[in-house]
Formats: sequence, structure tokens, C-alpha cells
Amino acid sequence: MSKKITPREKDYSIWYNDIVQHADLAENSGVRGCMVIKPYGYAIWEKMQAELDKKFKETGHLNAYFPLFIPKSYFSKEASHVDGFAKECAVVTHYRLKTSEDGKEIVVDETAKLEEELIVRPTSETIIWDTYRKWVQSYRDLPLLINQWANVVRWEMRTRLFLRTTEFLWQEGHTAHATKEEAIIETEKMINVYADFSQDFMAMPVVIGLKSENERFAGALETYCIEALMQDGKALQAGTSHFLGQNFAKAFDVKYANKEGKKEYVWATSWGVSTRLMGALVMTHSDDKGLVLPPKLAPYQVVIVPIYKGAEQLEEITISVLKVKSDLEKRGISVKFDNRDTHKPGWKFAEYELKGVPVRLAIGMRDLENGTIEVARRDTLEKETLQIIDIDLKIDSLLINIQENLFNKASNFRDANTFKASSYDEFKKLIKKGGFVYAHWDGTSESELKIKNDTKATIRCIPQINTDEEGTCIISGKLSKQRVLFAKSY
Amino acid sequence: MSKKITPREKDYSIWYNDIVQHADLAENSGVRGCMVIKPYGYAIWEKMQAELDKKFKETGHLNAYFPLFIPKSYFSKEASHVDGFAKECAVVTHYRLKTSEDGKEIVVDETAKLEEELIVRPTSETIIWDTYRKWVQSYRDLPLLINQWANVVRWEMRTRLFLRTTEFLWQEGHTAHATKEEAIIETEKMINVYADFSQDFMAMPVVIGLKSENERFAGALETYCIEALMQDGKALQAGTSHFLGQNFAKAFDVKYANKEGKKEYVWATSWGVSTRLMGALVMTHSDDKGLVLPPKLAPYQVVIVPIYKGAEQLEEITISVLKVKSDLEKRGISVKFDNRDTHKPGWKFAEYELKGVPVRLAIGMRDLENGTIEVARRDTLEKETLQIIDIDLKIDSLLINIQENLFNKASNFRDANTFKASSYDEFKKLIKKGGFVYAHWDGTSESELKIKNDTKATIRCIPQINTDEEGTCIISGKLSKQRVLFAKSY
Repeated sequence: MSKKITPREKDYSIWYNDIVQHADLAENSGVRGCMVIKPYGYAIWEKMQAELDKKFKETGHLNAYFPLFIPKSYFSKEASHVDGFAKECAVVTHYRLKTSEDGKEIVVDETAKLEEELIVRPTSETIIWDTYRKWVQSYRDLPLLINQWANVVRWEMRTRLFLRTTEFLWQEGHTAHATKEEAIIETEKMINVYADFSQDFMAMPVVIGLKSENERFAGALETYCIEALMQDGKALQAGTSHFLGQNFAKAFDVKYANKEGKKEYVWATSWGVSTRLMGALVMTHSDDKGLVLPPKLAPYQVVIVPIYKGAEQLEEITISVLKVKSDLEKRGISVKFDNRDTHKPGWKFAEYELKGVPVRLAIGMRDLENGTIEVARRDTLEKETLQIIDIDLKIDSLLINIQENLFNKASNFRDANTFKASSYDEFKKLIKKGGFVYAHWDGTSESELKIKNDTKATIRCIPQINTDEEGTCIISGKLSKQRVLFAKSY
Repeated sequence: MSKKITPREKDYSIWYNDIVQHADLAENSGVRGCMVIKPYGYAIWEKMQAELDKKFKETGHLNAYFPLFIPKSYFSKEASHVDGFAKECAVVTHYRLKTSEDGKEIVVDETAKLEEELIVRPTSETIIWDTYRKWVQSYRDLPLLINQWANVVRWEMRTRLFLRTTEFLWQEGHTAHATKEEAIIETEKMINVYADFSQDFMAMPVVIGLKSENERFAGALETYCIEALMQDGKALQAGTSHFLGQNFAKAFDVKYANKEGKKEYVWATSWGVSTRLMGALVMTHSDDKGLVLPPKLAPYQVVIVPIYKGAEQLEEITISVLKVKSDLEKRGISVKFDNRDTHKPGWKFAEYELKGVPVRLAIGMRDLENGTIEVARRDTLEKETLQIIDIDLKIDSLLINIQENLFNKASNFRDANTFKASSYDEFKKLIKKGGFVYAHWDGTSESELKIKNDTKATIRCIPQINTDEEGTCIISGKLSKQRVLFAKSY
């Protein structure tokens, strides 16, 4: 079994697949477009989940669970929503199989046909707002701040592990508010939660902004997003937060009695991130040797590999290793001691490099004599031999250093690949090269679509923070208040 | 909105539904047989999940995620499995909807028909063993110890919140081993993990045993189970662990090379518990006033209600409450301070009684003067006024006491409703009354089915711990080595 990683230079797309598969993150299953998330990949997702869940709870949200299936008729209730989601979805039409008459196979039992087809949820606004109608009567019931961790299905034609799969895992927040202002504050709060998570935990810098009308969520009045830059110069949308206005409240008749007893429609938001973040994580930090993980999301932050000949040496080394391991664990650092006799140290070194373990410690008989230990960091691939005394302290600060270094490296890469275009010619040259391109836009769909048709670049967002001068649209020459962010994207 | 609970005496089944709905655990959705798990119910499930997940990881298991959909042909590969599961399942036949020609509704796009139908997983053995074929080559790859938290769908005709729903949440462990012995040890280990969880966290006593052949999981050689007794005298199967032999390895061709290089089929287990545990929890402890929660699974263990008139009094009381709250939280006790001005203390008392909060504290102006606090425990409904000094210590030991008391109460109830039958006449009388009935059985399907047809009672299990004398089957008079456990069941 060769685990060679194709270099990025040679084929970025194969490089990505090699890492996802050889680092044991995920693989394709026997079901078209559906992936198996392997234990090592799932452990990273669990770390993401734990941190996000904590942030949701700290901001007052509660978890709940809504049905996997949505009756077809629910989709028709919100017109733009059905246009966006009904096209590509898994439809349940029957509820029984039977043995065929010749006894040779199992077939669908045609007598068990559903009266109304059920859609496997592509997103849960409709089923949730159908429920909220029962939960909201008075202003006392508001705000409703609810999140769901779930699987969803969108029938994608071209799939890629983590980035675009038929089934994926995500969380979807769905909140209900008495006022428009409160709903907008919530929408903005949650996009900031996502941005903080991306930057502090994934070590991935993001641009926060608003989508243009064309790129909005089906059913939203505004969509906020965070956009990250991948190593091939393409943008990746890493999370969205939608201000839904009263669209779903009206579609599902959700009203509350205000303090004066008057009935009013409720204001809504929804927001989500998915296992797509795993793809973003891989593409932000990894190199040609394999995965590179930020310490805050690594299933184990440190691996210890003993260098020995024979059981006696292993025993001696183990005494020293267990002391180091216990000291590290007391500091909250997660450690794997790989004392397997079935694999050689060289094999183990390669394996943990491939899997992106932030720090590798190696210890042999010479180290025991000298009171030393070899420390290798995955991000820079640097190695040094340190005195073993206070090693827990040294590793603790090294992990902090690695987390920061990864963020800085990604930020520097992004900065080096962020450009301003003043004319459409310049824009086209820059977009061809790849990266983030800021350019003035007149706010019309026409200009946006012309750019998309000509260059495949889309408006990733209208940045929230505008430190920009006014200018003129690169297409129409009309006045523009700020540059917007263009890129080709995943 | 009246939240009256129907007494158990009057209608046990309505009592159960009243509690599940009025205590905000779950409700029916617009989708037939599918429930919405409400935030308070989901918080209890999260506590169950966290504890079980910890136990799985402590016993060496890793989490992963496998597809929601299973190709129809996979089911046909294990003959008894398909018989057990293909009958009632949701079948996906199409992957697109479209607007009807008259533009008035959305309909299934008949051109988007799947070549092979997909089944929404009722359980994941087939898709997982199809994957394990790629993961297992050599003895070095074994054992594979994997768990999945997921939703599953079984098309139930009669559904009841938590106890039997079309979609439910569960975990399913799927392990692969080199030897039969190791697989059996795993199967037994996991049923003991479930039993420990039930008793230590749910405060629910269980009997561990083996299923008879008729009651086994479709595809298993042995099924271990835990059985609990509900307050209406019916048994509830709370968890199962299956020794699958080499059935799935053979069906999906999963072989490993042993140390001598010889190819052998792998041995398998699977084990699961589901949101059904929520139903068991409700029915084990609750009373006619509402839910009763064991402290170890309560979303908040203590609620504090201030008794005041006007903002000034509330302010004074709050100072004292926040001190108590912080002292309790330092001990790891979860506390809710309900200072809402929209509801009166009496309403709050009733609400938290209904929701089963283990301890309620109330504090008013008189208490402030006297340095006291009112302590009410949910399990016994006893109230007393205690000195507020060292209240954290007192509550800490009270919570331990409540947890124990609930287990003892449930154990005493079970003991008082557990009987031995020596003849079939006696058996029929006892079963009619309800409860666990131990009786001798000759081990044949005929005797088992006769009993089931006559009385609706089934063999819940052949108990693992047999302190019993030999005897003769109550039906056939043939020799029997031990009594087995009969009951009517959920």
C-alpha cells in the first residue's frame, strides 16, 4: 500500500484527494456521492463540533432535533425556497420492499406507495417553521434560539470528499424574534461566531461580508458569509448566516401577540456550517508531505515514538515516556504513545507526518543517557534535540507557537494573493492568476453575470469592513461606494 | 394552556404521553411517525450521549460516520438480515422534483429515477461491512472498534413518542475481530456497559440476559439484552449487543491474513441503544405530577425561585441567590436561576415539578432575615427549610441521595413485581397481573410461541446470572436447566 501524495504543483485536485484518503479522513462509499468519514477524520469533526456547540450555548442557543423527512407540500409554501432546493433532492416514494415473485431478488412493493412523497431534508427551514407555529404564541415565547446537529442531503451531480457530497453533516441554527432589529443582530452575531471559530481554532483567516442578491440563500433577505482563500487561489465559503425576514413566518403562519396583544409575524434567521469545513482545513494548511493540523483541532497533539531494539530497551524507554506523557496530559495536552512492535520508527514518522500530528517526540537509548528528547514540529518540519527537563512546559508553548504560526502563514499567503483591480483588463489578468480580487461593482446583476460568464469569478462577498475609497464599476463605469471581493470558488 | 397530567391509574398510556408533551420532551411532527425532540428532551439525550460516548471511548472505540443510504442490493447479501429489515423501510426512488406542467404544484420528476433504489438505513451492518472489506487486510488491522451516532428509519405502523418512532436517534457499534472468543468478549463487554449506564445514570435496574432464537436480531448468532420493568408491569428492552459470528464477513467477503499468512473470515459484533431510553427513563421514575429525573441526567439539577414583591426585593434576594448559585456551580452542580418577572412563583413551582428538576430552592425576604432557604426534593416531594450556611454541601449530598433513592425505589418496585411461576395456570394468572415472571422453559420454539399466543407474554431473556434450581417446562413438562424471564413488553 503506497501512500504517496501527488504534489500540489502537479495536480492540486489529486493532491487534495490523496491527503483526504491517505491521512484517513474520509473515503468514497458504495453509495453515489456519499462519503464514509473515517475515525481520524471524524475525531477532527468532533473537535470542531465541541467548540462550536460550546459557542452556541454560550450565546444562549439550545439544541433540538427535527425530522429527517419533509412532506413535499411544505416546500411549496415558500416560493423562492422551493426553487432553490426542490431541484436536487432525494425523494422517498415507498415504505416497503418485498421478495420478487420468482423469489430471486427484493423489489419495491408497489402497494406501499406514499400518498404524499417525502423529501430527505436538504435544509430544515420548512419543517422547523411548521413546528414553530405551535411554539410561538406570545412575546414571552421569543426569542426562540435553537440549533440542530444533523445530516442533510442535496443531490449533487459532481461530488468531492467533504467539499461537495450528496449527504453531509452540519449544524443549522433557526431562530425566531419579535423584531427585525433583533433578528439582524442575531444574524450578525452568528457570522462572527463562525469567523472567530475559523480564525482561533482552524487558524484560517476569513473575510466577513454580505452576499449579492444572486448568491443569497433561497428564501433569505440577506446572507452573511465568511470566505477563505485556498492554496490554489480559489475561495471557499466556510459558513453562512441568513436574515430571513418574515418570509417563513408568513409561509407557515407564525405570529405572536405583542405586549399590546396585537398579533404580528415573527422575524427569522438561520445559519450553518458543515463538514465542508474539513475540506477547508485540509486545503488551508497541508503540504506535499500530507495533512497539517492546527493543535487546537488535532485528535492528538503529540505523538511519542520510542527508538529501541528488543523488549528490554523498550521497557526502559517506556518508563521515561510515561513520565513525559503524564506531565503533558496534566497540562491538557493530548498524547499518543505508539509502542507498536509491528511497525518500525521510520514508518511511524512517515505516518504521523502524513496525518499532520503537530508535534512528534522520539526517544532512544542515547536520549536516556543524555537526558534528552527529539522534538519535531509538523508545520515547519524542524527538528531539535532538547533537554527532557521541563519538556511539558516547552511543548505547551510550542503548541501555542504552532497554532499562531499556521494562522500567520495562512494570512501571509492570503495577503500575497489579494489584489485590487482598477480596470476590467487588469481584473481578468488577476483572476486568471488566482486569488482574491477586489474591484468596484455597480451593484447590478448584469455586471455581476457578465463577469461570471467571462471569467468564472463570482462576487464572494461585499466585505463588512470597508476601508476603501469610492470608485467606478469595472464593467459599467458607474459609481461604486466600495470594492467587492471577487474570486473563483469551490 | 392547561398542563394537567392524566393519572397513571386512569390511563397509563395517556399519562405517558402527557408527561412527554407537557414536560417539553418531544411532540409529534407533521411527518407521520416522526417526532420533534424539544430542547429540554434533547438536553437529557445529550447527557446520555456524553456519558455513553465516554464509556465507549474508555473501552477503546472510535467514532466514525457511514452513509444514510444503503443500496437495495446490499440487503440481499445476508439472507436473514433482509427478512428482518427490508419489510418496513423508507425507499428513495427519485432524485429530483419539478414544477408540474400547469405550474400549480411540484411533482416528482419521473426522468430522475434511480437505477437502483436506496434504502434509508434501518441499521448499518450492510453498508459498514461493505466498507470493512477495504479496511481489513491483516491481523494488524484488527480489532476494528467503531461506533456511529446516527439517525435511522424503520417504517413502524403504530408509533409512540420515543418508544417506537419511524425515525429515531441511536448509536450503533460495529466491531471486527480475529477470533470468535474475542468477539464474544466484546459482545458481553458492551451489554455490561449498557447495564452499568442504566443503573448508575438512569437509576434503572435491568436484567442482563440472552434472547431466545425467535427474539434475536436478524443476522445474529446471539443477542444479549438488558430488560427493565416499567410501572405498568410491562418490560422494556433498553439495549442490545449482538454476536454476529462470521455472517456479515461472509456476505461481504471480509477476510484477514493471520500471522501465518492464511486468509480467514473476520468475526463481528454490533450493539446499540436509542432515544427509546428516553421513554424508559420517563416510565421508570415519573409520577402523576410529572417527570422525575435522576440528578445525573437532569439538564439542570437545581432550580432557584425567588419569592419577592417589586424590583427592590428581587435585587436583595438576587445577591444571596448568586452566591448560592456560584457555590453550587463550583461543586459541578448545574443551576438555573429563574428570575423571570413574567411568571409567578406558584406557576414556576408547578412548571419545575412537571419537568422533574431534582431540587428546587426558594428564597424570600423572611429567609434573608433568618439566613434560611427552602429546599424541595422532586423524588419524595418533601420540603424543608434549611440554614443557608454550607447549603452547597447539603445540596451536593442531597443530589447523591436522590440518585440512590430513585434507583432503590425502582428496584423495590421491580422486586415487588417479580414472580416465579411453577405451573402454566399460575403463570397465566401472574402474567395477567403484570410484572416479570420467571418460569421453566424447555428451550423449544413451540412452547415459546404457545405462551405468546395464549398470553401475549414473550421471553424477555435467558438471564445471565442463574441462581436457579433445575425444573420442568411449564408447557411441555420437559427438563429445564433454569427459569427464563417472561413478560409482556413494549
